[in-house]
Amino acid sequence: MARKLVAAAVAAFFLLAVSGAAELRGGGVSAPLLVTKESRRAVVSTDAGSITSVDVNDESRGRYHLEFITMEPSSLFLPVLLHADMLFYVHSGNGRVHTSVREDEKERVEHMDVERGDVSVVEKGSVFYVQSRPSLTEESLQIHLLFNHVDEGNSEKASNEAYSIIGDLIRGFAAKILQKGFGVSEETIEAIKRVEKPPLIIPFLHNNEMMETHTWIRRITSDTHDELAKKNKNKKFNFFKAKPDVENCNGWSTVLTHKDLKALESSHIEAFMVNLSKARPHWNPSASEIAIVIHGQGMVQVVCPNQAPIDMYQCKEINFRVKEGDVVAVPGHLPMSHMSYNNGSLVFVGFSGIARKNSPQWLVGKNSVLQTIDKEILALALNVPKSIVKDLVRSRSEPMILDCTSCAEKLDDKMEEEA
Amino acid sequence: MARKLVAAAVAAFFLLAVSGAAELRGGGVSAPLLVTKESRRAVVSTDAGSITSVDVNDESRGRYHLEFITMEPSSLFLPVLLHADMLFYVHSGNGRVHTSVREDEKERVEHMDVERGDVSVVEKGSVFYVQSRPSLTEESLQIHLLFNHVDEGNSEKASNEAYSIIGDLIRGFAAKILQKGFGVSEETIEAIKRVEKPPLIIPFLHNNEMMETHTWIRRITSDTHDELAKKNKNKKFNFFKAKPDVENCNGWSTVLTHKDLKALESSHIEAFMVNLSKARPHWNPSASEIAIVIHGQGMVQVVCPNQAPIDMYQCKEINFRVKEGDVVAVPGHLPMSHMSYNNGSLVFVGFSGIARKNSPQWLVGKNSVLQTIDKEILALALNVPKSIVKDLVRSRSEPMILDCTSCAEKLDDKMEEEA
Amino acid sequence: MARKLVAAAVAAFFLLAVSGAAELRGGGVSAPLLVTKESRRAVVSTDAGSITSVDVNDESRGRYHLEFITMEPSSLFLPVLLHADMLFYVHSGNGRVHTSVREDEKERVEHMDVERGDVSVVEKGSVFYVQSRPSLTEESLQIHLLFNHVDEGNSEKASNEAYSIIGDLIRGFAAKILQKGFGVSEETIEAIKRVEKPPLIIPFLHNNEMMETHTWIRRITSDTHDELAKKNKNKKFNFFKAKPDVENCNGWSTVLTHKDLKALESSHIEAFMVNLSKARPHWNPSASEIAIVIHGQGMVQVVCPNQAPIDMYQCKEINFRVKEGDVVAVPGHLPMSHMSYNNGSLVFVGFSGIARKNSPQWLVGKNSVLQTIDKEILALALNVPKSIVKDLVRSRSEPMILDCTSCAEKLDDKMEEEA
Repeated sequence: MARKLVAAAVAAFFLLAVSGAAELRGGGVSAPLLVTKESRRAVVSTDAGSITSVDVNDESRGRYHLEFITMEPSSLFLPVLLHADMLFYVHSGNGRVHTSVREDEKERVEHMDVERGDVSVVEKGSVFYVQSRPSLTEESLQIHLLFNHVDEGNSEKASNEAYSIIGDLIRGFAAKILQKGFGVSEETIEAIKRVEKPPLIIPFLHNNEMMETHTWIRRITSDTHDELAKKNKNKKFNFFKAKPDVENCNGWSTVLTHKDLKALESSHIEAFMVNLSKARPHWNPSASEIAIVIHGQGMVQVVCPNQAPIDMYQCKEINFRVKEGDVVAVPGHLPMSHMSYNNGSLVFVGFSGIARKNSPQWLVGKNSVLQTIDKEILALALNVPKSIVKDLVRSRSEPMILDCTSCAEKLDDKMEEEA
Repeated sequence: MARKLVAAAVAAFFLLAVSGAAELRGGGVSAPLLVTKESRRAVVSTDAGSITSVDVNDESRGRYHLEFITMEPSSLFLPVLLHADMLFYVHSGNGRVHTSVREDEKERVEHMDVERGDVSVVEKGSVFYVQSRPSLTEESLQIHLLFNHVDEGNSEKASNEAYSIIGDLIRGFAAKILQKGFGVSEETIEAIKRVEKPPLIIPFLHNNEMMETHTWIRRITSDTHDELAKKNKNKKFNFFKAKPDVENCNGWSTVLTHKDLKALESSHIEAFMVNLSKARPHWNPSASEIAIVIHGQGMVQVVCPNQAPIDMYQCKEINFRVKEGDVVAVPGHLPMSHMSYNNGSLVFVGFSGIARKNSPQWLVGKNSVLQTIDKEILALALNVPKSIVKDLVRSRSEPMILDCTSCAEKLDDKMEEEA
Repeated sequence: MARKLVAAAVAAFFLLAVSGAAELRGGGVSAPLLVTKESRRAVVSTDAGSITSVDVNDESRGRYHLEFITMEPSSLFLPVLLHADMLFYVHSGNGRVHTSVREDEKERVEHMDVERGDVSVVEKGSVFYVQSRPSLTEESLQIHLLFNHVDEGNSEKASNEAYSIIGDLIRGFAAKILQKGFGVSEETIEAIKRVEKPPLIIPFLHNNEMMETHTWIRRITSDTHDELAKKNKNKKFNFFKAKPDVENCNGWSTVLTHKDLKALESSHIEAFMVNLSKARPHWNPSASEIAIVIHGQGMVQVVCPNQAPIDMYQCKEINFRVKEGDVVAVPGHLPMSHMSYNNGSLVFVGFSGIARKNSPQWLVGKNSVLQTIDKEILALALNVPKSIVKDLVRSRSEPMILDCTSCAEKLDDKMEEEA
């Protein structure tokens, strides 16, 4: 009987699975909830690397523009001027990120060597460029960029205005203005104006490449991680090196706030990474959440609660499978759950806009909002006996990441049946 | 001659009276100015109570969603999770309001006993539910809710997203996720999933109802109002117990700011109550105003000043009758006046968004903006002799609430003629 | 060869010149970039003066409404109530500006005598009126008004809602309400209601005009400029009396921040004046810029950098001639250059919304952002040899205002050829 119920539940679970961009309509949500890796927009594609992009338009919070940069070893992402605060996450490889910005008549030029798991923020108005490390392993440098509050018009614009390519800024002016502006000869300007515009990612074959590589390797290895962490204090954070906020045999999660990375303070973003082997029902009532799946696959279930207005369209729950490279965007107040497949892991890195007093509201565990409601009242709210409620809200020590081995196994069976 | 002029003025006064939702167009205002009690939207209707709602979309300030809850004695408004700051006003009856919210890993659970005239604010992200008191007098508990800055999309959405019903949040998830999430048996989840969803307001027949009633009464009566006020300091405010800001034989008015109720500070709302037996021309240049008529009836006149752009559409004044339960929304910078009928009183409770430096700008009385203008200049502005201006702006001690007995009588005559 | 290249460049320079309102489409910018003096909208036109207006809708930052007031000597701009913060610049003549506002139950009434070059801010909710000085020289008083963040609906509304005429606020109410509201006789109200509405600017023939004139002159001349400046500390600022931030034989520029004029702090505007005899390529990545040409003529070139998204519309550069009275609005992140004609000067006063950390990003000079980029990288970005880059970014002591005599001469030749 119990077994049969599970099967029914799992079947329902797949009923609304979608493979493209799903939209909730009628429930007040128009953000695409899922953008698969395949449906990203191509921005740049060369032998040295590629850029794809995704725009998320959460009506309740604003617009976000994501770009996914892939750079082959020994490549260069050419300098751009950022028009919005940008958070980046290093998905693979090694490289060096250069930033510069002017503040109160002074310039602040920084570079930092980055590796897998690093996250940092570069502020609006900065010049930004990236070198990928010469690699013996041929691992490409992959950086995910999130542009926050590109609040200018529609998403097509957002994409177009995330940054300006420095070269375009110069080449765009009339030759005569450039000549006089820079105080250089006509020949110099002529040299600049007549050349082909380079692609945004180009091979970067240093003259002293081998030495550079050695230097680079030496620099990385001569510092212990602790020393590096100290140097980069307030500049970057590494999800894989930090102690998780929650960790048990079933997975871990880390939330990165401005307390961990000072640069997050002014950008009003929080970042998080969750490594799940198991289901984790959770919701966050006061912030949008954008998550990029960086490993594995799983299911996301979003519940669209109706509030019983008479004759009102009732939005349905939405479930979809996610896999590495997919982007899931969930408006702030919708409850959702994530679950991995096959006891394999589902890992995602995500971002949420910070609202005032943004303590997440959990459904389960000792911090559950259910704990704050009188049990008799809760029984009435759920229309069940009080004994059921007591069962439901008894305190648990692991609120977020929970064992669901049997569930995963059965989902696995189900998937095999479907295939 | 003077008498005839009055009749003409009063006739003009009724010319544009509307009974439904009036909209000013062309003058830059599209907010519905009047939503009658009859045109509210039904949200919930059961034997235990009902909820109706009104959406106000003031383009200049944002969206407001109002809900009007009526609960029979011994009823329960089930727990909901608020998606926006909510101000509530208790229109009649007695009850207990429960709120809980998580802040920085701690939970804050509060309940307060409320009665007619109470106003309080519950912050976004809180769980909120209400019990109506078992009543010997059969008086229902009526609570008006105002959701501020539900800045998400259109008003249909605003309505749908003011709060989520806690039960929906749980029932929405797949059984398997719930089972594993809560770590309970399939039977427990089955019990939750298979039941009917209860209506949002249900009878609440406590086991020990009589005792509860006595306790309740004792609790309420054992404290003097002063003691209660001290306990609820910074939590609630009662319009009928507070000393009015302005009071005379013709009425009174009270403005409630964050100085009176700390919780108002973060929500950027002011509340006010005005009890008029007489006309009161007033305008507020820097904030929208939403008023709910809670007693009596009267007239509201809104003036749409044109600024003489050549060939520009000129919006007309709008007048309408209002009665108990009607909602009037007036964009910030439009001058307006309220007037009661028949020497009866017109009482309204209202809310305005707070702008920077929101001192209301009065047209009449010693605080009138006219007092700040050179009299010669003002005579030129009005195109009248200086003597007329001196008559107009002489200081008065009662700026806001003014005698207009003869006016009310004549309006009354006029209304009878019309009928 | 070099000469021929210049001719070609200059020809290209004029190719896209437009005389009306130019709009950039497809590049994410819909703000009209140029509104000529001739295409301003007429608001008021009487013998005593006139008002014209321009609306600028920068999608990325908000809406701005500009009004250009011209008052003959001995005229009066009647009292209005401001619905938005207003910055004003005195273009010519002398007069007295009156402002009053209520704050926390107190009123603050101020007047200040203003002259050419003065800039000040009047806050939202204030009453504002202006007298032009009786003048022996027949010089009219010209004041340019900028209304900031009139964030209410479309620009037609913005225009209509920048302020309300005080007279309209009173005349709009029904006679009976006015009579009872002000507690005056029917005859007084009748006198107000039956008169013609005066135009917004009227002759102001003081009874004791000569004496007034003498008093005025005395008041102005009895104080030294330093004494006046002290009195008006934090109230107004004069561009022509202040020491420029940058000054050389080729021109000067002054940026006015809240450090110079306290009133700017709350309005989030910066003002600036630039007096160019020469070209000046510059861009500002974090704020919109609205400039009014107050003297001379010149060329403005705006570059619309494309960011190479595949299959994306590529916006073109736009060039236009500007002359006294024209308004140029450039969205924040577009690079632009200004250049005067004929070695004559091009003077403009401008305003920009302040973003967080709004240090302007220069292309040229020692503060250029190019200085912060590795020269080898910059060579790759521009696709030119490193020697060209070194030539381009060598430090210069005068970053903003640069000699371009030969250029101006050639442009002059070119213009004569065209004519």
